[in-house]
Amino acid sequence: MEEIHESTELGKLYLIPSRLGEQPPLEVLPLSIRKKINDINYFIVENEKVSRGFIKKITPTRSQGDLELFTLNKFSQEIEIPEMLAPCLKGFDVGLMSDAGCPGIADPGAKAVMAAHQQNIQVIPLVGPSSIILALMGSGLNGQNFAFNGYLPIDKNECKIKIKKLEKRAKIENQSQIIIETPYRNESVLKTLLKHLHPETLLTIACDITLDTEYIKTRSVIEWKNKKIPDLHKKPCVFAFH
Amino acid sequence: MEEIHESTELGKLYLIPSRLGEQPPLEVLPLSIRKKINDINYFIVENEKVSRGFIKKITPTRSQGDLELFTLNKFSQEIEIPEMLAPCLKGFDVGLMSDAGCPGIADPGAKAVMAAHQQNIQVIPLVGPSSIILALMGSGLNGQNFAFNGYLPIDKNECKIKIKKLEKRAKIENQSQIIIETPYRNESVLKTLLKHLHPETLLTIACDITLDTEYIKTRSVIEWKNKKIPDLHKKPCVFAFH
Repeated sequence: MEEIHESTELGKLYLIPSRLGEQPPLEVLPLSIRKKINDINYFIVENEKVSRGFIKKITPTRSQGDLELFTLNKFSQEIEIPEMLAPCLKGFDVGLMSDAGCPGIADPGAKAVMAAHQQNIQVIPLVGPSSIILALMGSGLNGQNFAFNGYLPIDKNECKIKIKKLEKRAKIENQSQIIIETPYRNESVLKTLLKHLHPETLLTIACDITLDTEYIKTRSVIEWKNKKIPDLHKKPCVFAFH
Repeated sequence: MEEIHESTELGKLYLIPSRLGEQPPLEVLPLSIRKKINDINYFIVENEKVSRGFIKKITPTRSQGDLELFTLNKFSQEIEIPEMLAPCLKGFDVGLMSDAGCPGIADPGAKAVMAAHQQNIQVIPLVGPSSIILALMGSGLNGQNFAFNGYLPIDKNECKIKIKKLEKRAKIENQSQIIIETPYRNESVLKTLLKHLHPETLLTIACDITLDTEYIKTRSVIEWKNKKIPDLHKKPCVFAFH
């Protein structure tokens, strides 16, 4: 395996998940995350303040002055990525983190990973919380075939068309459909889902995942319409239907 | 929130991920998994021997005689599920585990989760390794929109049609496509993917995820055709393309 030999003197790119909330880190992250954060000096992060806070929480004795953080978010340019991976070329490991959850999954990071592959830098994903997978596990919906579709369109008509298309795909292909929304739009999106989905379609609301206030429930659309909906306002939510 | 009140005296259904290989459990699982396994006496498992081995590994001092294990696999009947959840109705927590990775994701378990929702039993998914998410994180492919499609059809012509359909969806919808295969068929599936995918399509091979022998690499199909393919035989693999 030529490329593995090529990579032996390069640093590695570790993909480091973080918490979905403010709980004690080791409740939701394996020890290897703490160890790796302790060993690495170079990080690519979504938001410097958030990541410094998390690093301080999980490795309180680390000197923050030793850390070099590069910001990679949706405003970053492709041209900035080589600098972020430069430590790997000098033999130093780099950690890639997003603000919450798994880097690269419904979050920035994939471009840095792709650039690492192109430079034969070994990429090592570490285990941590993915709200998408946790919501799907907790939903009871089909986990043998599923799609994560990101956000629904803002335009009302496009949104309706998209919901109908995904619902059809759920039925025909037996594929669970997952979406997310920015927390302040949760209630509006739920209303839209309840309006356009078939009454017998199963809909999961998964909210505040891994937190003490976690709420995960699957019901048919008609049942949701007849029940009091929990308060979702400004809480991180995942919706799934089948 | 009526249903939360209803559930307070019931036991909960914990969804407990397990390792993808034989590494020390806390390298890939948070401490909360050990604590929860230590506290629970009733487990729904995919394979009794595998789960007893894992429980022994992560909580060596537990007396195995205290444990009551119910088997839930693809041969299980719907009618057996109420018995598995019966401890919850008596106020005892139940743990749901599959042999490797996250229960209900490319694994049995979803039926028990759905039955729990129907009985107002609270479902709590715990954090652990999902080879699908780890492969996607490590791929550098689009993680804002992706589908996990399970296995490709065995029939050669159906398989070709499916690959073409998923590739078209990847391009048109900007949706990364993920598939798995039973380990002894990996090399044959890879050959089929290389045969039918467009030369410029990006293809990720993710093998032995979280193990010392982990291999994750993304290249274009044409590059893969010109490189020596790593040995994938009988190793757990995830493939993704876009």
